[in-house]
Amino acid sequence: MKIESIDFFYLSMPKVTQAADGSQDALLVRVSAGEHVGFGECEAAPLPSIAALVCPLSHGACQPVQDSVLGQELHGPEDISRIAASVAYHSMDLLQAAHTFSGIEMALWDLLGKARQEPVWKLLGYSRSFAKTPYFSVLFGADPEETQQRAKLARSSGFRAAKFGWGPIGRGSAAEDAEHFRAAREGLGPDGILLVDTGQIFGEDVARAVERLEAMEDCGVVWFEEPFHAHALQAYGALAKQTRTVRLAGGEGAHHPAMAQHLIDYGGVGFIQIDCGRIGGIGPAKQVADYAQNRGVTYVNHTFTSHLALSASLQPYAGLESHKICEYPGTPQALALAITRNHLDLDASGQVQAPEAPGLGMHVDLQALKPYLVEVSIEVSGKTLYTTPALET
Amino acid sequence: MKIESIDFFYLSMPKVTQAADGSQDALLVRVSAGEHVGFGECEAAPLPSIAALVCPLSHGACQPVQDSVLGQELHGPEDISRIAASVAYHSMDLLQAAHTFSGIEMALWDLLGKARQEPVWKLLGYSRSFAKTPYFSVLFGADPEETQQRAKLARSSGFRAAKFGWGPIGRGSAAEDAEHFRAAREGLGPDGILLVDTGQIFGEDVARAVERLEAMEDCGVVWFEEPFHAHALQAYGALAKQTRTVRLAGGEGAHHPAMAQHLIDYGGVGFIQIDCGRIGGIGPAKQVADYAQNRGVTYVNHTFTSHLALSASLQPYAGLESHKICEYPGTPQALALAITRNHLDLDASGQVQAPEAPGLGMHVDLQALKPYLVEVSIEVSGKTLYTTPALET
Repeated sequence: MKIESIDFFYLSMPKVTQAADGSQDALLVRVSAGEHVGFGECEAAPLPSIAALVCPLSHGACQPVQDSVLGQELHGPEDISRIAASVAYHSMDLLQAAHTFSGIEMALWDLLGKARQEPVWKLLGYSRSFAKTPYFSVLFGADPEETQQRAKLARSSGFRAAKFGWGPIGRGSAAEDAEHFRAAREGLGPDGILLVDTGQIFGEDVARAVERLEAMEDCGVVWFEEPFHAHALQAYGALAKQTRTVRLAGGEGAHHPAMAQHLIDYGGVGFIQIDCGRIGGIGPAKQVADYAQNRGVTYVNHTFTSHLALSASLQPYAGLESHKICEYPGTPQALALAITRNHLDLDASGQVQAPEAPGLGMHVDLQALKPYLVEVSIEVSGKTLYTTPALET
Repeated sequence: MKIESIDFFYLSMPKVTQAADGSQDALLVRVSAGEHVGFGECEAAPLPSIAALVCPLSHGACQPVQDSVLGQELHGPEDISRIAASVAYHSMDLLQAAHTFSGIEMALWDLLGKARQEPVWKLLGYSRSFAKTPYFSVLFGADPEETQQRAKLARSSGFRAAKFGWGPIGRGSAAEDAEHFRAAREGLGPDGILLVDTGQIFGEDVARAVERLEAMEDCGVVWFEEPFHAHALQAYGALAKQTRTVRLAGGEGAHHPAMAQHLIDYGGVGFIQIDCGRIGGIGPAKQVADYAQNRGVTYVNHTFTSHLALSASLQPYAGLESHKICEYPGTPQALALAITRNHLDLDASGQVQAPEAPGLGMHVDLQALKPYLVEVSIEVSGKTLYTTPALET
C-alpha cells in the first residue's frame, strides 16, 4: 500500500500556562495508506512541527518532512526504517524534523499493525507483552507539606511508585531540597518506589547536583533524573561516579538514538528514558531498548500526555520482562484523556500493559476533540501550505 | 537598552533545487534596542524557524523563542549569555529553538558592537583579528573530469585551498571515489590544500569510510569531513583510530556547544567546524573555539551563505593565529551576495579577515532584498502570529 495522506491536528486546552505540564496541548497525527488509517502523536511544539512538515524546500539536505513520506510504499517494518532513514538524510539540516517525524512514525506502526491485525510489539519481534509497574508522575509541591500530600495521593490512588519533579528543587539550598525528599518518602511510605526529577536545573554544575546526593540516598531515592541539560554527557559521567545507591536517569531530550546511547556509554545513566514522540518514533526507541538491555541499563518510557502516546511508548520495551518501571501520566489535562476512547487503566495489581489489540490498540475519538482543535493557517508566497484538516473520521 | 523588536525576513531565490547548496534561501534577522539595530542570519529552514520564534506557549519548558528575548536588557556580553541561557531553559523542548536563536544571538552581538563602536571579536576578548586562508568550497563533479575542472577553477580564482563535497562520493565504489580524489589533486596542483566532505553519506558504516582512507592519504587530503551523521560519535572515534595522515573534520550539525565538544573528546576529530547560524550563535561558537584550542584541535568556521554569516563565523576564532583555514562561500547564489553591500574580499595574498568595523562590520542592504523576499503569514485561532515585515530601513 502507498502512503496517501498525513494530517496534523493541533489540539490545546483553552488556557495554557507556564506550568511544567506537557499535556496542555498535543499534536495528533493521522496517516492513511490503502484502506487503513494509523494515529500517532508528536511530543513537540505543534506550530514549528507543522511548519517542518510542510515548509518549502531549502536545499537537498533541508527538505520538508512530508516529501520523504508521502507516496512511499508501506508493506512491513523495513519500509518504516527506510522512510525514517530518508527523512534523516533529506532533512538533516531541519532541526525540528525528528520531533515532527516521531508522530508520523508511530502512526505508520499503528497502521501496519491494523493492516496485519497484530499489536505493534509483535511487529517489533516480541512474543509477549509484560505488565509494567507505573509510577505516578507529579510535580514537587510549593512546600514540603504539599509534596507530602501529593505523595499520599499517589499512594491512595493505588500507585506503588511515584516520581516528583521540578518545582522548587535546585532553586533554593540543598537543605531545603532535602526537606522535600523526606516529605515525599514520608507520604509514600517506606516501601514505595521514590523517583526524583530535577528538570535540568543544574545545567552542567556537577557540584550543586552532588550536594543533593546524600539526602536522596538517605531517603532511598531510586533514580535522580535529568540533573543536567540533555547534552551534558561529561557532567552526567562525573556525577555518576559519585553516587552510591541512587542511579542517574535521563534521555527524554534524545532526538536521535545515538544521543541515548551516549548517555549510557559516556553519561553512566542506570535508567534510560525515551520519549517516542521525540526520538523519531517507536523504531529508534526499540534500538535504544536493545542497546540498554545489552549493557545492563534499564529502559523506561517518558510519557506525559495521552494514552495514545502511552501505548506507543510501551511498545519498544513491552517484551523486556525485567524492565518493569513505566511512566504513567498521573494528572493529565482533560484534552490528553479525550484523545482516545479507551485508556490503559491499571489492573487489579496496579499494573499496566501494552494492549493485545492490533496496532497501538487505541481508539482515537476525533469527534471528542472538536473543543480542543486549534485552527492554523500557513501561507507562503500566496499559497496555503497548511490549513487545519476537518475532524471527520 | 531594552530589546524592542525582532524581525525575521525569509529570503529565497526564485527557484530552489535539491542541490546541496545552502545559499538558495536565507533567514535574515533584525533586532532593535535603544537607537541601535543589529543583523544576524539563521542557517536553518526559514518557515520552521519563524514558527519557533512566534508559536503559542506549549508549557513552561516549551516557550516561543521571542518570549525569552523581547523586553530584555542588553548592556554587555553577559546579557547575551543570560538571554541565551533563558532560551535554552524555557525552550528546552522546542527542538528548532537553537537554530532560531542563532541568528538573533548574532544580531545582539552586532548591535552591541555598534553601540560600543567595537568589532565583535574585541567584545569576545581578542586584541586583534588574524587573516585566514580561505578555501574554495565546491561540489564534486558528476565525473572525475568535471571535478578536475572545478579544482582548476579554484586555483585560477586565487585560492590555495579547496574543499570538494557531496556529489557522487560514497554512492559508487571506493575505486570510483579514488578517481575523484586524484582528479581534485591534479587540478589543484601538488601544493594546494585539498579537503574532502562526504556529507554524512556513510551513516555510521565505519568499514565503508575506511575503504576511502588510503586513496585520500595518497592524494594528500588534509581533512575527511562528515563521514557519518552528526550524532555518530562512536563511528567517528573508530575511524579516527585508523587514519595515518588525514584528520577527521565535523561539527557543522552541532546545535549545542557540548555536541562539538563530544566530537572532539569522543569522536577524535582534528578539525571542529562550527556554523554560528546553528550552534546558538557567536557565544557558543567561541566556547567551542576555546575548548578546541586547549585540546590541540583546529577550529574552522562552517559558512555556505552570505558575507554577513561569514563575518559572524570569523569572529569566534578571529584572534586564534594558528587556526588558519576558513570556509569561504565560493559560488553562492545571487541572493547571498545581495544581503550585504560590502563583502569580505580576498586580500592581495589571497587571505580574508574579520572586519575592524564595529559589530559584524557589514552593511545589510534591505532594499536590494526586495526581489528575494518571501511573503509569509501564520494565523493561529484567528490571530495573525506572523506576517512578513516591511523591508524599510
